[in-house]
Amino acid sequence: MRCSVVLLAVLIVAGVIAFSTSVSGHADENASPIYEVTIPAGYRDWKLISVTHEEGDFNQLRAQLGNDIAINVYREGRLPFPDGSIIVAMHWKRIPSDDDNKVFGKVQAFVAGSPVNLQVMVKDSQKYSATGGWGFGDFTDGKPADEAKHKTCFPCHEPAKGRDFVYTRYAP
Amino acid sequence: MRCSVVLLAVLIVAGVIAFSTSVSGHADENASPIYEVTIPAGYRDWKLISVTHEEGDFNQLRAQLGNDIAINVYREGRLPFPDGSIIVAMHWKRIPSDDDNKVFGKVQAFVAGSPVNLQVMVKDSQKYSATGGWGFGDFTDGKPADEAKHKTCFPCHEPAKGRDFVYTRYAP
Repeated sequence: MRCSVVLLAVLIVAGVIAFSTSVSGHADENASPIYEVTIPAGYRDWKLISVTHEEGDFNQLRAQLGNDIAINVYREGRLPFPDGSIIVAMHWKRIPSDDDNKVFGKVQAFVAGSPVNLQVMVKDSQKYSATGGWGFGDFTDGKPADEAKHKTCFPCHEPAKGRDFVYTRYAP
Repeated sequence: MRCSVVLLAVLIVAGVIAFSTSVSGHADENASPIYEVTIPAGYRDWKLISVTHEEGDFNQLRAQLGNDIAINVYREGRLPFPDGSIIVAMHWKRIPSDDDNKVFGKVQAFVAGSPVNLQVMVKDSQKYSATGGWGFGDFTDGKPADEAKHKTCFPCHEPAKGRDFVYTRYAP
């Protein structure tokens, strides 16, 4: 009887270790370097902040979505963003809309094509105190970019310090 | 006593008439000609379908939002849109983003500026049987455009009959 109890305890401990390793291994793989930011579940249902057209080398259309905490900041006009705010920027290839252009009789309408990448900003003023309180994640096909890429996030957002490091303004 | 009851009844009827007139007068003023479509309450909270860039004379950025009925059609890929589907297209002036461009060192980023107009499509296959089951509304500063403008809605959407008269595709 004592032997069975010991065996059961060993099995439970082994199971917990195996489970933890699996969970942490999974999280690391999908989290951004430096910041450990992951793609937030359900973000595609979030409310729209605004849209962007990047010309030149990018040639992209973009949309920025926010969770409710972030959206409330925009609507109430009170910076800084509190902890828990998350902003997701969807970047798509900008492609001509053949259907629209046929109606217009010329090429003038462009729409969102295939996804290029997804960028995520997460506010946690303690965890990310060295980078304005924001953690960053850049994902392509669900996988985070490398550390070198993530080292460029904060320097690029730093000039927007007066708006809590966020460029996007709310589209009325 | 009988006189008081009659007086009360008269006052109630008068009140109801006054209220009805006020309500219907208000509704007409904000509803589109031909279709009687109004701006749906809370549409700015709806989920994003996709984004558009209109070049040329328009020079606009646009975002299309859908209520849950419409969004489900897109996500499940099953046309036609059922009655109750509503799609709202927000059209903004496309303006350069000075903040972004300062960082890039050149003018390449454009964002949503002031609103131009708002277009609404409402599915009601019986009420709008003559126009593919869709009612249309075009609003500027909350007020509907005139009848002549609304006569152009369906002819423009008719070529998209194969997609239930909706041009916008869901952005992945």
